[in-house]
Amino acid sequence: MPQKVRIALDAMGGDNGPSVVVPGAELALERHPDIAFVLFGDKVVLEPLVVQRPRLAAAAQIVHTDVAVKMDAKPSQALRQGRWKSSMWLAIDAVKKGEADVAVSAGNTGALMAMAKFNLRTMAGIERPAIAALWPTLRGESIVLDVGASIGADVEHLVDLAVMGSAMARVLFDLERPTVGLLNIGVEEVKGLEEVKEAGAILRDANLPFLDYLGFVEGDDIGKGTVDVVVTEGFAGNIALKAAEGTARQIAEYLRAAFSRTLQAQLGYLLARKALQTLRDKMDPRKVNGGVFLGLNGVVIKSHGGTDAEGFAAAVDVGYDMVRYELMSKISHTLIRHARTDLGSSKVGEAIS
Amino acid sequence: MPQKVRIALDAMGGDNGPSVVVPGAELALERHPDIAFVLFGDKVVLEPLVVQRPRLAAAAQIVHTDVAVKMDAKPSQALRQGRWKSSMWLAIDAVKKGEADVAVSAGNTGALMAMAKFNLRTMAGIERPAIAALWPTLRGESIVLDVGASIGADVEHLVDLAVMGSAMARVLFDLERPTVGLLNIGVEEVKGLEEVKEAGAILRDANLPFLDYLGFVEGDDIGKGTVDVVVTEGFAGNIALKAAEGTARQIAEYLRAAFSRTLQAQLGYLLARKALQTLRDKMDPRKVNGGVFLGLNGVVIKSHGGTDAEGFAAAVDVGYDMVRYELMSKISHTLIRHARTDLGSSKVGEAIS
Repeated sequence: MPQKVRIALDAMGGDNGPSVVVPGAELALERHPDIAFVLFGDKVVLEPLVVQRPRLAAAAQIVHTDVAVKMDAKPSQALRQGRWKSSMWLAIDAVKKGEADVAVSAGNTGALMAMAKFNLRTMAGIERPAIAALWPTLRGESIVLDVGASIGADVEHLVDLAVMGSAMARVLFDLERPTVGLLNIGVEEVKGLEEVKEAGAILRDANLPFLDYLGFVEGDDIGKGTVDVVVTEGFAGNIALKAAEGTARQIAEYLRAAFSRTLQAQLGYLLARKALQTLRDKMDPRKVNGGVFLGLNGVVIKSHGGTDAEGFAAAVDVGYDMVRYELMSKISHTLIRHARTDLGSSKVGEAIS
Repeated sequence: MPQKVRIALDAMGGDNGPSVVVPGAELALERHPDIAFVLFGDKVVLEPLVVQRPRLAAAAQIVHTDVAVKMDAKPSQALRQGRWKSSMWLAIDAVKKGEADVAVSAGNTGALMAMAKFNLRTMAGIERPAIAALWPTLRGESIVLDVGASIGADVEHLVDLAVMGSAMARVLFDLERPTVGLLNIGVEEVKGLEEVKEAGAILRDANLPFLDYLGFVEGDDIGKGTVDVVVTEGFAGNIALKAAEGTARQIAEYLRAAFSRTLQAQLGYLLARKALQTLRDKMDPRKVNGGVFLGLNGVVIKSHGGTDAEGFAAAVDVGYDMVRYELMSKISHTLIRHARTDLGSSKVGEAIS
């Protein structure tokens, strides 16, 4: 029997805490019976929820703490009050200590990133971590990063993002040489930010064996699936992600209104319902829940704070895949090969001259 | 009879040039019989197209030029080759000379902005022009700016964008005091770019009579219609706009596929067709075509390059409204009042201290 995938859960994280985390864990366990959970949180609340789910109870261990990071805590505040003892910290710490393979939290992003950085530290050769999102596209799925770990990016960080994102694409999409694009405005080489142009020149000239750099892409290329990996700094990435989510919700709202407008439309809906279910699944933001923290010495998955059990289970699924397909070691290998090809900042001036 | 609205058209602009511009002008004329057009472009091509449309022929004048700015020309190239003589330049120049009230072009954005800046110059008190987009929302429409005139924004530019955007909202949406939000990542005051934070502090403290500053908004607030005016710098704004357009197209694609999947779904579609038409109209990017160049001494409207006659007509409509409801004078008045309330950079340090 292969080894279990050990997943540490911040059971108190998210808008709804244990009432979403516990049933979410149960759902993920149904799909992946080889998961072993450690739930960090208030035993008094967690135990009854776990006990009434015999299968989960057999695969889960509860570690008590009565400290939980608040959803509106500032990162510095969360660190001050929640370090060493909060459910969020302990979940990350289990990864640090090698007691878990991945940590999943629906807690607040700033606090989670601050604790993950503080405790796990960035990988050798990586300056700043990133958050990668899975983005449904017309061709399947793409990875978009950074979607909000940090604001602004210098040339080196953009190249790091390309390397980390392509490693993740190789793992999740099983691709030899994922295609990579830099998010920009206008596809002509003349436009856009200096850093983006320079990073593009470096990636093009390097012609790396583990990623296929295709050039600049624009906002509408993300949904088209023009590339497997879309690289951008965290401010624009976060805004793109939320603008797209907002648009999807907006159209869903329009559709609901359209189908309830007349009796005839309601009947039409009934007939087309099955076919529309596929669409609903594709548009369901819960199905692609789970931002992956990249660039740290350990895998941490951020679930949407306001998600339900299905959404939380999707975040656990992402963590599971990362471990099963050995994301961390693949990123490390890529980084080592990347370092060998010598794309450090010393090369920058040369590449663009 | 009130005065005509005089609209100058770059008849050679866009992917399809006259074959879209001329029928587009005809459509706009049907809706607004008080338009007088001047079409700049190749008379040999334009004349037959105009002559076969008697109503348009009666309301349009053709001014010949055989120079057209290429869709892939760099701004500097376009200026060098197209100044004084191209259809794009001449349309803008008609506004400059007071021979037209507004210019509309589907030509390339960079060239159009470069020529408009060079010829019309920025308004007194405005450092950099902006492109404002109309964005369909769950509550109607909002204005988002800047969507790509320039990259990056200092505090003063962001405040200018808020002032110009709210003037446009007052004109187009007939509002006394439009609500304004600054696009950011995370609504907590602690997050985001320094410039955005400072601009927020200034707008909040100023409590301007002609705009109601509501604070930070996120990418998904745009589609919700949380505010009438969304202010951001051009890189993030352009990416948000295109990411949303991409998502809308993606979902339209899914819908088409869903409705053709089975006979039953096809029948359902037929029954719901009328109701879905409303949805299609709402999602139709052509209906909100027309980026408005703000901050120049004259109104220039940019239509999508790849649009059809319906889309081009929508861009003409936007230009028409701008003139009819006196956008320019309202922006000027607002700027003068804005200058009086003394929000210059001298105030910045004070406001955030």
